[in-house]
Amino acid sequence: MNRADRPLRLALLGCGSVGSQVVRLLREQADDLTARVGAPLELVGVAVRRPELQRDAEVPAGLLTTDAEGLVSRGDVDVVIEVIGGIEPARSLILTALESGASVVTANKALLAEDGSTLFAAAEKAQRDLYFEAAVAGAIPIVRPLRESLAGDRVRRVLGIVNGTTNFILDKMDTHGSGFAEVLEEAQDLGYAEADPTADVEGYDAAAKAAILASLAFHTRVTAADVYREGISEVSASDVASARDMGSVVKLLAICELRDDPQGPAVSARVHPAMIPRTHPLASVREAFNAVFVETEAAGELMFYGPGAGGSPTASAVLGDLVTVARNRLDDVRGAGESTYAQAEVLPMGQTMTRYHVALDVDDRAGVLAAVAHAFAEHDVSIQTVRQEGHGDDAQLVVVSHRATDAALSATVESLRTMDFVHDVTSVMRVEGDGE
Amino acid sequence: MNRADRPLRLALLGCGSVGSQVVRLLREQADDLTARVGAPLELVGVAVRRPELQRDAEVPAGLLTTDAEGLVSRGDVDVVIEVIGGIEPARSLILTALESGASVVTANKALLAEDGSTLFAAAEKAQRDLYFEAAVAGAIPIVRPLRESLAGDRVRRVLGIVNGTTNFILDKMDTHGSGFAEVLEEAQDLGYAEADPTADVEGYDAAAKAAILASLAFHTRVTAADVYREGISEVSASDVASARDMGSVVKLLAICELRDDPQGPAVSARVHPAMIPRTHPLASVREAFNAVFVETEAAGELMFYGPGAGGSPTASAVLGDLVTVARNRLDDVRGAGESTYAQAEVLPMGQTMTRYHVALDVDDRAGVLAAVAHAFAEHDVSIQTVRQEGHGDDAQLVVVSHRATDAALSATVESLRTMDFVHDVTSVMRVEGDGE
Repeated sequence: MNRADRPLRLALLGCGSVGSQVVRLLREQADDLTARVGAPLELVGVAVRRPELQRDAEVPAGLLTTDAEGLVSRGDVDVVIEVIGGIEPARSLILTALESGASVVTANKALLAEDGSTLFAAAEKAQRDLYFEAAVAGAIPIVRPLRESLAGDRVRRVLGIVNGTTNFILDKMDTHGSGFAEVLEEAQDLGYAEADPTADVEGYDAAAKAAILASLAFHTRVTAADVYREGISEVSASDVASARDMGSVVKLLAICELRDDPQGPAVSARVHPAMIPRTHPLASVREAFNAVFVETEAAGELMFYGPGAGGSPTASAVLGDLVTVARNRLDDVRGAGESTYAQAEVLPMGQTMTRYHVALDVDDRAGVLAAVAHAFAEHDVSIQTVRQEGHGDDAQLVVVSHRATDAALSATVESLRTMDFVHDVTSVMRVEGDGE
Repeated sequence: MNRADRPLRLALLGCGSVGSQVVRLLREQADDLTARVGAPLELVGVAVRRPELQRDAEVPAGLLTTDAEGLVSRGDVDVVIEVIGGIEPARSLILTALESGASVVTANKALLAEDGSTLFAAAEKAQRDLYFEAAVAGAIPIVRPLRESLAGDRVRRVLGIVNGTTNFILDKMDTHGSGFAEVLEEAQDLGYAEADPTADVEGYDAAAKAAILASLAFHTRVTAADVYREGISEVSASDVASARDMGSVVKLLAICELRDDPQGPAVSARVHPAMIPRTHPLASVREAFNAVFVETEAAGELMFYGPGAGGSPTASAVLGDLVTVARNRLDDVRGAGESTYAQAEVLPMGQTMTRYHVALDVDDRAGVLAAVAHAFAEHDVSIQTVRQEGHGDDAQLVVVSHRATDAALSATVESLRTMDFVHDVTSVMRVEGDGE
């Protein structure tokens, strides 16, 4: 079974919650990993900023080093595992590792979404692997299915719940009827949200993953800067209640779409809260779980579900990549690299087709409904349903549109705001996942 | 981008519902496939039994042949796609194809489950790929995630809804309260069940998939003969109602488990109807959809969901494999082969740990509950809950056990049947998925 007597030499960059679990699994599963790779795996160095820190995993003292640059450039490392996160020094270290002949496994979504092309080009030049299953949706296998399993199919749309913190918050808002601020505090107390929750709550984390998913799904380079982004801090208890009235639930979705325009394929990637029907498979994704729903031409609708974060699940994804990359090293081959042959146009948000749910406090008098309908028609937006609720001072109109460009829908809402019989636009939210 | 000027030559065995869709996708996605593989794919022959039949796909007339043996042995074919199904002639044709230097992509679950080892040995000897994503759960990527994504983790349990026909029937029994026979007829009218539904309804199809899943998950050779099998033809409307009373739903599950026994790891694979809680992710798998729920040590709980059958979804899985296998041919390498290094003991059903839900019509008198509890205790089975329902002639006891060997549970039920105060054992069903 063993294909090489020489052990494969690994270097680990970062030993926090993920890195510690990587070290633990490398030790605990050593025999299985050896059998699956075809050679033993030997950890030759672990780069950390503060070697004096107490860690979850026992790292043999001689392996710890603060000299990450020295570790990746020593030239005898077969695979570098990067779990530092962030742009620098991660980028420089990965580039040096590739130049020095190592293959790389990384969990770094931010770096891949911002500057993946530099990394992939370096991997191509060095003829080494760059694998990143752990960068999207933690332990859930989604990178490999998109890159390989669905390589004979055509992906049309990806809808992902790819941020556990925001899903936990929205789920609690839905089940308890609480407001955003209150639930955020609870999430922070429970360790589901960080002290500074911006990256999660404002959708930056999900946007990075959307860029990676769109690139893989559509064989086109999509970066974080291409992704429209809205977080959940403006989602109110009344938005959530409004969704409930429609038989829907509010989720923060990463949405990647392919559209066949007359001049060729065009893609879009966006992150925003949206109402989805409770019957949609994504609606049952509770607490901090993640799930990615994929619509393809031949396979139809697929969903991948699991824990989207956490040291141990993320380490599982890292080690899965490690086994493939290590096998490739033994065989002296490379796996699939970046695929951008389609070079589809990346659409700005305004040109993306969406649907809106709009709730308005209005005067309770004849002609209001006609005037609201007219505002939609003026922007070429057709209406799916209008529902009037309450009377007198509590009169409310709830309008759900058909699909239109986001620009037209947004302009419609702006013009509604200026109408004198509209007291307030109490909720504006996009609607997804109901097959419209 | 093109890595080869020479097209890769494909032969297709079978041109029914799956084969026709393979032909269609090869034509419609030709440009994408060429870009993803790095060379054009050329279909050089399609073996069918009756060339005169009308088919869904337009197969160029010159390609059709009845000489399958001649097609696979001609020696200039790079990849053979087998979608005939069944044991023979599929096995002989695959073996000849490998001997003649072709890699093979197959959707043949029955053959893999019965005699996979012969095929894998032939692939190893020929140094060619044998890929089979389409053999389990249609379009749902599950073979590749188990073989590769989770290769750095340890799978403990797989629970799969892997047969669409039976899931459709059980779902309808649950939602409409109808009996098995009535729903089977409806499923046959709608094309969800075949005229002879035995392979689906009696669990043979699911058992083949369970053998393949267990082999992959536990790196151990498990064949169809190792899989305990019970179908759904005995599931009654009252079983389904009983499940509902417990907040559960009845599903036909393929269950693969790993157990760490003192003398080493032991695995089991079985197919039977089971009650699972409605809160379990598998409970929401409706109609003819499939899903595979995987529990691992590091990643935790994952689920893969999608269409488990159908020409187009199955063809998607076939083509995903084809892209990988074709790329490997260009690079002159092989992907992961069979992995059986763990060689775990395969346990018979009697030694498998399960839980039972038992409903009994009993005399409504003092001492009955104690006697029933005594029958369980005598077989070393401890009871989780007992519920008495009804009075007098309608008195019923519902007992749910803790985990015990299936042999002990089965013996307990046999001894209950002999007791004079037990008028009838109205429902016996295993209980899964509630974390016990």
